[in-house]
Amino acid sequence: MSKQLSRRKFLGMAVTGAAGLVIGNMIDLPSRVQGVVDPTPEPPSNATATNPKTAPDTEPFFGVHQAGIVTPGQQFLNITAFDLISEDRNDVKDLLKTWTKMIARMTAGKPPSDETQNAKFPPLDTGEEVGLSPAKLTITIGFGASLFDKLGLSSKKPKGFGQMPIFHLDALKEPLTHGDIVVQACADDPVVCFHAIRNLSIASSGIAHMRWQHTGQFGTKPEGTPRNLFGFKDGTNNPRLNDDAFMNNNVWLNGKDAPAWLAGGTYMVVRRIQMRIETWDQLSYKTQEDTIGRQKLTGAPMDGINEHDEPNFKNDANGKVTPLDSHIRLSNPRNGEQSERERILRRGYNFMDGLDEVGRMNAGLMFICFNRNFQTQFESIQNRLTNAKQLDLLMKYTQTVGGGYFVVPPGVKNANSFIGEGLFS
Amino acid sequence: MSKQLSRRKFLGMAVTGAAGLVIGNMIDLPSRVQGVVDPTPEPPSNATATNPKTAPDTEPFFGVHQAGIVTPGQQFLNITAFDLISEDRNDVKDLLKTWTKMIARMTAGKPPSDETQNAKFPPLDTGEEVGLSPAKLTITIGFGASLFDKLGLSSKKPKGFGQMPIFHLDALKEPLTHGDIVVQACADDPVVCFHAIRNLSIASSGIAHMRWQHTGQFGTKPEGTPRNLFGFKDGTNNPRLNDDAFMNNNVWLNGKDAPAWLAGGTYMVVRRIQMRIETWDQLSYKTQEDTIGRQKLTGAPMDGINEHDEPNFKNDANGKVTPLDSHIRLSNPRNGEQSERERILRRGYNFMDGLDEVGRMNAGLMFICFNRNFQTQFESIQNRLTNAKQLDLLMKYTQTVGGGYFVVPPGVKNANSFIGEGLFS
Repeated sequence: MSKQLSRRKFLGMAVTGAAGLVIGNMIDLPSRVQGVVDPTPEPPSNATATNPKTAPDTEPFFGVHQAGIVTPGQQFLNITAFDLISEDRNDVKDLLKTWTKMIARMTAGKPPSDETQNAKFPPLDTGEEVGLSPAKLTITIGFGASLFDKLGLSSKKPKGFGQMPIFHLDALKEPLTHGDIVVQACADDPVVCFHAIRNLSIASSGIAHMRWQHTGQFGTKPEGTPRNLFGFKDGTNNPRLNDDAFMNNNVWLNGKDAPAWLAGGTYMVVRRIQMRIETWDQLSYKTQEDTIGRQKLTGAPMDGINEHDEPNFKNDANGKVTPLDSHIRLSNPRNGEQSERERILRRGYNFMDGLDEVGRMNAGLMFICFNRNFQTQFESIQNRLTNAKQLDLLMKYTQTVGGGYFVVPPGVKNANSFIGEGLFS
Repeated sequence: MSKQLSRRKFLGMAVTGAAGLVIGNMIDLPSRVQGVVDPTPEPPSNATATNPKTAPDTEPFFGVHQAGIVTPGQQFLNITAFDLISEDRNDVKDLLKTWTKMIARMTAGKPPSDETQNAKFPPLDTGEEVGLSPAKLTITIGFGASLFDKLGLSSKKPKGFGQMPIFHLDALKEPLTHGDIVVQACADDPVVCFHAIRNLSIASSGIAHMRWQHTGQFGTKPEGTPRNLFGFKDGTNNPRLNDDAFMNNNVWLNGKDAPAWLAGGTYMVVRRIQMRIETWDQLSYKTQEDTIGRQKLTGAPMDGINEHDEPNFKNDANGKVTPLDSHIRLSNPRNGEQSERERILRRGYNFMDGLDEVGRMNAGLMFICFNRNFQTQFESIQNRLTNAKQLDLLMKYTQTVGGGYFVVPPGVKNANSFIGEGLFS
């Protein structure tokens, strides 16, 4: 049994007023919640981004890249931004070390802590996940530009990296936007996502606190491309997740385009896009298809038959078949190499959060994408969609209210390292 | 192809400004979205509450009781209250007829309408569920006391049935409370729940609109009793769903205790219970167990070993083992017949909805229960929990902000009937 009084236990005591430093009332729990015989696992010797799975329903944690990026999309998302309370580099370093250990454990289906529970102290595991599957949990961590500023680490910050700008028609709400650290939890169980974020948050007490949190879900997965809440297939043109050439060209940072410590990382763009469900539902079937620029049922382009047919915009210069201001045409004009270079990896989720304050359905898309250069990729696309002179038709029915830009550090190669280690070296 | 101009199409046209009554541009869609050859199904001849399933991943719709009450709990919930805009009985009758047809179709995995899509009119199916499983969808409809008042049908209203009272420590928010009609959608897919409610809402245009909406989820189902977000098993003492004697004694209305038209129905109590996650997480393990009155890991009573062991409160009159104000002890004092008569059927869901306006986790339990007599069952229990002289310890960490009382009419026995038909006869 550990006789150490951890920081977390100490905080728990301070708050609940438990007297003194008595270490007693140890509870003998099965390893699912105790974990004393489960130290942080050693990575397999061939640790890479394509690690074999180490257990059923788990995704590998150790690797060149963080998990949750080219991992096949799980059904549920909980994405939470944290703000630093402490601006002491050592505090943040300790937090990232603690989080790394916890994440390695939780993604392997183990409880967050390997300490022994003392009945007089708060639970080392909040417990709502006991009995559930690991559900392919992945945790992906990114840093906002403000983290570098607060910690005085501007030398570590990539050139040109700052807060997400306000694009034309954005209606960003400050409490739902930006943040020093983002934590994306994805799993095939919403309680497993919630549990991971909640326990990371407990461990951050006194160093960081939650700024915003959103959940998303696809539910059961259909064959092929899932649909968004406007009823259209969403992600038809997404790259295959095993397309290494694409990922190297369009997603992963290397030593040339960012500081060396970020090689193997990427940029993450998060946008909470409200969909105006009631307005959309009053549009004609034809108007909906013209707005997206695809056929609703099949997902095929307007001039095609099957979902993955390539539209021929050159034969339709006036937009008679596919309107010039349709979403598909503005988001990817199929301009050869230029369009290929812009392509991003999308990994978003639907959200369905009841009604908003004026009674509309509070639903839409948690847009998440990863790209190697947010300026020449995401922003280039987004500026075309929100260009006041030829606005994407879809902008009439959507509104972005939050999100942010985050730089995602590389993966953790072994148990001696931790997420974001390069920040401090 | 139907040449009828449905009310819904007409509304769509009025809003989008489609000109005239031209019926053209019919779209030939596969039956999954068209459904012209799928009239509302006839019920099987042995239609009862225990109908055999009619298709994979579907729950039977026709029966003595509505589905979604003794149906084994699906993973996801979308529960929405509607308020009447029209107080014309015929409008509401038409709406309930339309809804019944739509529900019979959607729970069978069919699109909501059997009409043919016209490209100039809004979609007859919003489409986000295309390609998904029916996911065991059930829809359960209940009526608030205000519905009877608005329609001038007080003779149909059960004696003593009114709005949910404000219990001690409740913090009800008006926009999240009460409602004329409640619609509970449960399925193993959150998009299937959302789709059902959304399409029912479209069909209610001009007659009713949404007042509040909440989602809930259990995610993957563990073996045995699921856990709530305080990490405890929740529902250990719930009746078995096939315990017909219990259901007849404690859940289903008969001709004696309510107006005859409600025989086979029940009362539904909905309470949105916020859980103060951050406060709870600072309590000691021991305090958490004392608050609930059960052992956290196993769910066993404090004096027991296994989850389903019965606590012996008589041997513990002073509450040394199980505190007198623990949740388990106040909610069910095990007073023999009296306690048995009080027992309710719980069918709640966890909710995890990001952060609230002051940054706390907006999470808790969508408590839903069914009972035959809300006064001698639910209210008797609730009054014990919220009695200021000996408050349930759990009340320190929870707060009810919404919900309502609804009377659930019986099931629909065949395709010639509709939900709530007895209201109008």
